Amino acid sequence: MYELQFSSKIIEQAVDAFGSLPGVGKKTALRFVLHVIKQDIHSAQNISKLILQLKNDLKFCIKCHNISENNVCDICSNLSRDESIICVVQDYRDVLAIENTGLYKGHYHVLGGLISPLEGIGPSNLAIETLLEKLNNNTVTEIILALNATMEGETTSFYIFRKIAPYSIKLSAIARGIAVGDELEYTDEITLGRSITNRVPFDSLLKK
Amino acid sequence: MYELQFSSKIIEQAVDAFGSLPGVGKKTALRFVLHVIKQDIHSAQNISKLILQLKNDLKFCIKCHNISENNVCDICSNLSRDESIICVVQDYRDVLAIENTGLYKGHYHVLGGLISPLEGIGPSNLAIETLLEKLNNNTVTEIILALNATMEGETTSFYIFRKIAPYSIKLSAIARGIAVGDELEYTDEITLGRSITNRVPFDSLLKK
Repeated sequence: MYELQFSSKIIEQAVDAFGSLPGVGKKTALRFVLHVIKQDIHSAQNISKLILQLKNDLKFCIKCHNISENNVCDICSNLSRDESIICVVQDYRDVLAIENTGLYKGHYHVLGGLISPLEGIGPSNLAIETLLEKLNNNTVTEIILALNATMEGETTSFYIFRKIAPYSIKLSAIARGIAVGDELEYTDEITLGRSITNRVPFDSLLKK
Repeated sequence: MYELQFSSKIIEQAVDAFGSLPGVGKKTALRFVLHVIKQDIHSAQNISKLILQLKNDLKFCIKCHNISENNVCDICSNLSRDESIICVVQDYRDVLAIENTGLYKGHYHVLGGLISPLEGIGPSNLAIETLLEKLNNNTVTEIILALNATMEGETTSFYIFRKIAPYSIKLSAIARGIAVGDELEYTDEITLGRSITNRVPFDSLLKK
């Protein structure tokens, strides 16, 4: 694409600012800018205010590192949830996704990313130390690894597995297999292979 | 996609606000929100401020309706540009694109959209009346229609053509044809047909 020469410094700066959002290039950023210019002042004031609120009013839960409006998030402070099970996830979106299933009643631990040498993210950049600290007070009985089934996710799972091994705590991982609604014919061999190896008693499928 | 239940009212509102941007769904909006939360406070303050500036400091040029920091835009107030030629475009982005060629030294007229019955946009929603007013003081000698080669663009061009016909002013349209770098084999028949019908003297291709 040709190098855009904007007629206005404000537009240029706004395109740069929107362009810093993930997956947004200059053309898309310019579409956003034109949209803001055309919409009414109240919508612009609203989005402007909310961006500041995201930074000012939200924090990371001191226990699980999830995004929270308070120092301790709603999940960690909910006494009806099982503190002895910790589900390890990459970020806030994964907590949302698992919460939406309604099938998990334990606690979470948000790593804040996955080990990725290509992006320069090592174990020390993730909240792994604070996870291990939780294992010292003997209240945790099980750790569930719920990370992406990608190279980065598997690497991170394996790293945590090695770190947790000395604690002799039950360590599990969410099942890999054929997604509900998928056809065998179009499933890749690795997934299909794992789903055969890790087959489950049929009656477990009858529960939701 | 499952209906997202956010743990925070602020996140929910911010996702809605980002989701109102063109082409942004809930998942992308959530990515933007998480990005804002993770970035430093200065970036968030910067984007928040720029959004307000876009609304407060920019206006539409009273002559050509292009986006401008002043009442009359830089192009309309530039005395070295030819006021007798007006290039009619859909929006600000088209002005940018044509300006970037460096080959046009006339004025512009920004319609603010294209006739689109499907989207409920009729001629009265576009800046067509103000274009016709410009023709009354006999300074304009040529109108160039530079609208998209789509159904909406062609409809709008034809509507303006009929409106301008009584003024006996030279009316032209930007050439349709094979883009520079394109291969004939992969060009659609309509474009190829037009490029044969509207063939140009070979030596005109030798100029830039």
